[in-house]
Amino acid sequence: MTDGLDACFVGVPLDAGCSNRSGTQFAPRYLRCESPNGPVNQGTGVNPFLTHNVADIGDVWFNLYNLPEACRNIREQYQAIINNNCIPLTMGGDHTITYPILQAMKDKYGPVGLIHVDAHPDLQDDVLGSRICHGTPFKRAYDEGLLDYSSVIQIGLNGTGYPSDDCVWTVRDIGRNLDFRVMKAQECWYKSLEPLMAEVRQQMGEGPVYLSFDIDAIDPSFCPGTGTLKLEDSRPSKPLNSSEGVVA
Amino acid sequence: MTDGLDACFVGVPLDAGCSNRSGTQFAPRYLRCESPNGPVNQGTGVNPFLTHNVADIGDVWFNLYNLPEACRNIREQYQAIINNNCIPLTMGGDHTITYPILQAMKDKYGPVGLIHVDAHPDLQDDVLGSRICHGTPFKRAYDEGLLDYSSVIQIGLNGTGYPSDDCVWTVRDIGRNLDFRVMKAQECWYKSLEPLMAEVRQQMGEGPVYLSFDIDAIDPSFCPGTGTLKLEDSRPSKPLNSSEGVVA
Amino acid sequence: MTDGLDACFVGVPLDAGCSNRSGTQFAPRYLRCESPNGPVNQGTGVNPFLTHNVADIGDVWFNLYNLPEACRNIREQYQAIINNNCIPLTMGGDHTITYPILQAMKDKYGPVGLIHVDAHPDLQDDVLGSRICHGTPFKRAYDEGLLDYSSVIQIGLNGTGYPSDDCVWTVRDIGRNLDFRVMKAQECWYKSLEPLMAEVRQQMGEGPVYLSFDIDAIDPSFCPGTGTLKLEDSRPSKPLNSSEGVVA
Amino acid sequence: MTDGLDACFVGVPLDAGCSNRSGTQFAPRYLRCESPNGPVNQGTGVNPFLTHNVADIGDVWFNLYNLPEACRNIREQYQAIINNNCIPLTMGGDHTITYPILQAMKDKYGPVGLIHVDAHPDLQDDVLGSRICHGTPFKRAYDEGLLDYSSVIQIGLNGTGYPSDDCVWTVRDIGRNLDFRVMKAQECWYKSLEPLMAEVRQQMGEGPVYLSFDIDAIDPSFCPGTGTLKLEDSRPSKPLNSSEGVVA
Amino acid sequence: MTDGLDACFVGVPLDAGCSNRSGTQFAPRYLRCESPNGPVNQGTGVNPFLTHNVADIGDVWFNLYNLPEACRNIREQYQAIINNNCIPLTMGGDHTITYPILQAMKDKYGPVGLIHVDAHPDLQDDVLGSRICHGTPFKRAYDEGLLDYSSVIQIGLNGTGYPSDDCVWTVRDIGRNLDFRVMKAQECWYKSLEPLMAEVRQQMGEGPVYLSFDIDAIDPSFCPGTGTLKLEDSRPSKPLNSSEGVVA
Amino acid sequence: MTDGLDACFVGVPLDAGCSNRSGTQFAPRYLRCESPNGPVNQGTGVNPFLTHNVADIGDVWFNLYNLPEACRNIREQYQAIINNNCIPLTMGGDHTITYPILQAMKDKYGPVGLIHVDAHPDLQDDVLGSRICHGTPFKRAYDEGLLDYSSVIQIGLNGTGYPSDDCVWTVRDIGRNLDFRVMKAQECWYKSLEPLMAEVRQQMGEGPVYLSFDIDAIDPSFCPGTGTLKLEDSRPSKPLNSSEGVVA
Repeated sequence: MTDGLDACFVGVPLDAGCSNRSGTQFAPRYLRCESPNGPVNQGTGVNPFLTHNVADIGDVWFNLYNLPEACRNIREQYQAIINNNCIPLTMGGDHTITYPILQAMKDKYGPVGLIHVDAHPDLQDDVLGSRICHGTPFKRAYDEGLLDYSSVIQIGLNGTGYPSDDCVWTVRDIGRNLDFRVMKAQECWYKSLEPLMAEVRQQMGEGPVYLSFDIDAIDPSFCPGTGTLKLEDSRPSKPLNSSEGVVA
Repeated sequence: MTDGLDACFVGVPLDAGCSNRSGTQFAPRYLRCESPNGPVNQGTGVNPFLTHNVADIGDVWFNLYNLPEACRNIREQYQAIINNNCIPLTMGGDHTITYPILQAMKDKYGPVGLIHVDAHPDLQDDVLGSRICHGTPFKRAYDEGLLDYSSVIQIGLNGTGYPSDDCVWTVRDIGRNLDFRVMKAQECWYKSLEPLMAEVRQQMGEGPVYLSFDIDAIDPSFCPGTGTLKLEDSRPSKPLNSSEGVVA
Repeated sequence: MTDGLDACFVGVPLDAGCSNRSGTQFAPRYLRCESPNGPVNQGTGVNPFLTHNVADIGDVWFNLYNLPEACRNIREQYQAIINNNCIPLTMGGDHTITYPILQAMKDKYGPVGLIHVDAHPDLQDDVLGSRICHGTPFKRAYDEGLLDYSSVIQIGLNGTGYPSDDCVWTVRDIGRNLDFRVMKAQECWYKSLEPLMAEVRQQMGEGPVYLSFDIDAIDPSFCPGTGTLKLEDSRPSKPLNSSEGVVA
Repeated sequence: MTDGLDACFVGVPLDAGCSNRSGTQFAPRYLRCESPNGPVNQGTGVNPFLTHNVADIGDVWFNLYNLPEACRNIREQYQAIINNNCIPLTMGGDHTITYPILQAMKDKYGPVGLIHVDAHPDLQDDVLGSRICHGTPFKRAYDEGLLDYSSVIQIGLNGTGYPSDDCVWTVRDIGRNLDFRVMKAQECWYKSLEPLMAEVRQQMGEGPVYLSFDIDAIDPSFCPGTGTLKLEDSRPSKPLNSSEGVVA
Repeated sequence: MTDGLDACFVGVPLDAGCSNRSGTQFAPRYLRCESPNGPVNQGTGVNPFLTHNVADIGDVWFNLYNLPEACRNIREQYQAIINNNCIPLTMGGDHTITYPILQAMKDKYGPVGLIHVDAHPDLQDDVLGSRICHGTPFKRAYDEGLLDYSSVIQIGLNGTGYPSDDCVWTVRDIGRNLDFRVMKAQECWYKSLEPLMAEVRQQMGEGPVYLSFDIDAIDPSFCPGTGTLKLEDSRPSKPLNSSEGVVA
Repeated sequence: MTDGLDACFVGVPLDAGCSNRSGTQFAPRYLRCESPNGPVNQGTGVNPFLTHNVADIGDVWFNLYNLPEACRNIREQYQAIINNNCIPLTMGGDHTITYPILQAMKDKYGPVGLIHVDAHPDLQDDVLGSRICHGTPFKRAYDEGLLDYSSVIQIGLNGTGYPSDDCVWTVRDIGRNLDFRVMKAQECWYKSLEPLMAEVRQQMGEGPVYLSFDIDAIDPSFCPGTGTLKLEDSRPSKPLNSSEGVVA
């Protein structure tokens, strides 16, 4: 399906890795629906379609009821795309999907660089005993050596976490323990981002790089549809027999 | 929490067992939000709150990322409710939830009667290799002997299924193989349902009965928000390397 | 403003007489907004604008914070319209408004006929000690002799009420005590309404008649925006220190 | 693009031929967006994709600002589809589009049969001096001999028109002047449509047939988004210096 | 109901004191509906529910049709809450409600401090002859000595008023006549608010303080649902016989 | 209709000149619907209705299916308004409408000044062979000498165009070829616009000036409903037999 393509748009409508609000499964279809496109970006004067073959290859398939199995399915289909020298332009899907995509990238390129734009570091080790969900992809990437840490930057962090030290990496911890470069959201405000972008280009060098963009990097006043803002999971965090005071 | 209550409203905001459209996780909160209630039903003249103690006890808690585990969580919390002689009035949640609720009912009462109002029989043995999801609860109930088949009726069937005989029970099969009583949607049209209701009351006798209502029993022209109408799952049904002709 | 007009559209954006849901104040503006109109009704072949002068004279003014005062304001402005031999075509507003409009009609015509299409009789004597609100207009009309009872019919009743005999008139009571003719909603189903309309025309005779149409006469499955369906007021019906069991 | 296809889905997002409400241009993209599809229709047991090659070939292109030119563009692209023995399954677009599609059909097949489901006959000769817009396609088809009248039926007529005899064909006129078979909406109510469908199959015989479905054939209480209900055009029908009484 | 609670969430779904747009009555229920909450605010590291007992005690009850009576109802129920040493966290409701809440606070604490965040000062003496509505609460508070003026600040003023000097307090007047401290909206732009917050803390001292937050303090481009922006009441400001030129 | 009026609100619900998204035809009715107005702007202290006679005269009429004809209709009706010494306050409508309005202004005043606030210059010579549509009005104005170029400024340009030099004027070209003064969007950010406004007042002098405001001058994060952002037309830009790579 990707024969002759330089890049492809591909959807991964995964929802099952969310916590607060489902709905990411609809994003691929609505991105297609609401995305008029003309050939020229007059700002740059470039018409990429004159120099690149690009197609929308549809959505990948995955097991709906088993997140680890879904990740295996996604990894396989991304291997097929990447091994065919086609660059995937992914429409997610919750952030679980980045884990199998990075696995497929490593299968071909070895550890890759990462530009991760997000309010949250998504570096939890597990959530509710699950090691695979939208809170854990970059911890899995770290554990499996999928990333070239000298070429990793997380931009826009403004997140919150759960009240246990061994399952959350605070912003302070990231820098100290994982060698990721981190830019908090507040460091991005009220200034041009051109200098930062120039630095990032330089940091990435010539190697393969993966760009992961989470909509909650944009302030919720503009993008309110996201699931986890700066608040916690909306479900009760303990069973109903708990005595911890909140009655919703 | 249910001490002294005759009945309670309880939410089970489960989404992970859906196939086509997520969103059932929002139903408990919106049912609460949109449900004004005054004490009297003038049609019957009854004010149930004068004779019964009823409260809203909030939502149950369950593992978001593991459906079998979620079912164990739900079963436990329902055992606590039912063992305290409190009748649960459940706001779901996708239809997976009926399986653990019936388990909890059997734990106390033995096999129970069932009035199941739905466009679909939800009697699949597995979907995508998963034996627990929204298409399988009544097959699990059947397998585990949770039901008193002489007191089971499914009303409103109008569903479709997947193209494999061993994972779908057609309407014809239900009646023949499982001893369920079945009323197709078309048998309910253009007539009073009072005679049917009288028959059902009689059929149920005096034993404990569970009523399960799926919103897709109502015609989608009135309730279009449901996930599975008479169409199939919206995801591609095979991996992208399949040659089965549909390009979404 | 109504000089030379045979009829006028006029808005009464009153909200303060509602109980469950406000919002009627928006109806005049949205009726105007969503009402395309061409001159001919091909069904009848009539173009009323060829034979009648009609204009939209805007909205009446009234005191927002005092319902009895608002009624006096509305009555005055309707007197001006009606005394100028202009027929008001009113866009409400909650049903409180019918009371002062009927007062203005009586000021000119004496008691008038009434065709009242509604799920509720709106014949309560008072609600929460208030004798003027959306539940009482036809009781006020009855008390003040605004209606010619031989020419009154209420069509579509399907309502509920409050649990006190001296402040609600059941459907049975209406017919017995007030000499209104009543057609319950169920008597209108599954049959042509042409015979009923012929009877009504005959019953109304030649005298002046007021037509009052409440959107809740239409089934909520088609018009869900209405405030009072067959349920009661959504606020708690007693102060929070009450022990009557409902926790919203 | 249609090589090897038995049928194709194709969009014609034309809006410019509407009168009251634009918006049909969005229908192709939203039909795609909201159309989950699985392979099997369990009602019939058929999986059409096992026996037919079907693809979505995207939207046709046409001049946005010139309706006659747009029709020429649409006709050409449909000729390419039809001449390649591919059956077009069209997602419109306002009803202007049926005119060039019928032209393309006649180019290959000669006059064809027509099953036209619509509240309106769309048989006006011109609107505002324009002979090509959504009110005229079947009159153009009639004038150019695109239809085999013995195989034409219009089902669901419930429409209104403009107050001039020479630009509207009443339902009575259709039957009398044009040899179309006509079923008014009222003749379709409260009965099974299976007998009618059997008659229509017989009437169509073995020749090529075009099915044209306008969403306003469905009652607006279910499909309120349509532009022309039983009301007229929402714009003033004469310039502002007219004295014909309507002040919007 | 508040026994043992340090604080409670409580709703006051009052609408009747609005002018332009009703709808505040829905806010308590939708705040509950849309407010997921987890225990920890990672920004501060605090989990307030570990140190405080908090519950949602539902909505207060009040007379729907009589604003002064409604205020008496609200005052009583707030006395019960406050006298039980429970801090009310109120979900309004239009701004009328602050008047009876401040009365209840004074009943226990004497005059209190006030932090009032709002585009409008709400210091009108009366509107349409009514001394109790959403435009007057702080004037009533002033008249009845409910406030300790040395501890009063109004932040975010950007409002407009009515064209009569004796019923509106301009921003200039507030500072001059009432000893309130005032920060206009424009003084809050493009700077950190931390210094202002430090000053306010100091100004408030140790005494009891009431915080009142009106959503129109936030720019309407982010919160467009509010009723009174910088425009006036949307109803005609005079009866229809007025000659003051606006035809809506 | 404009006798005695100093100014009038008038709607031009034209849609047919759009490219990406229709919908401008609804703007006049919704502007009316959502526009509450009170007499006083407290910011300035002015009540314009005390010194000016203003009325809403409804919508103009125009041929729906022929853009050049529609322009002639609009020009005529604007001549009637302007010749009666009434200032039109226009609610559009797509930007095609500015061309006939400027024609009517020139008919009375000769070439006029122009303050044009827009993300796009709308100076294309033709689109798809059409010289009249929403991309061309100011080029038509230029060609016909409708503007006094010393009093022309375009503010907020941030637009894109089509890949052909002879049908798009880049921002650079405007200044060089047409003597328009141009302020790009980026030159308006993060500064007060008061100095610019003072310059513009001075530049305009005492002559007649037309102000044209396109909603896409406001960032789409606040006004997302507009049709053309910085992207191109959403329709395929070439017929389906083109080989230019984009499959929507």
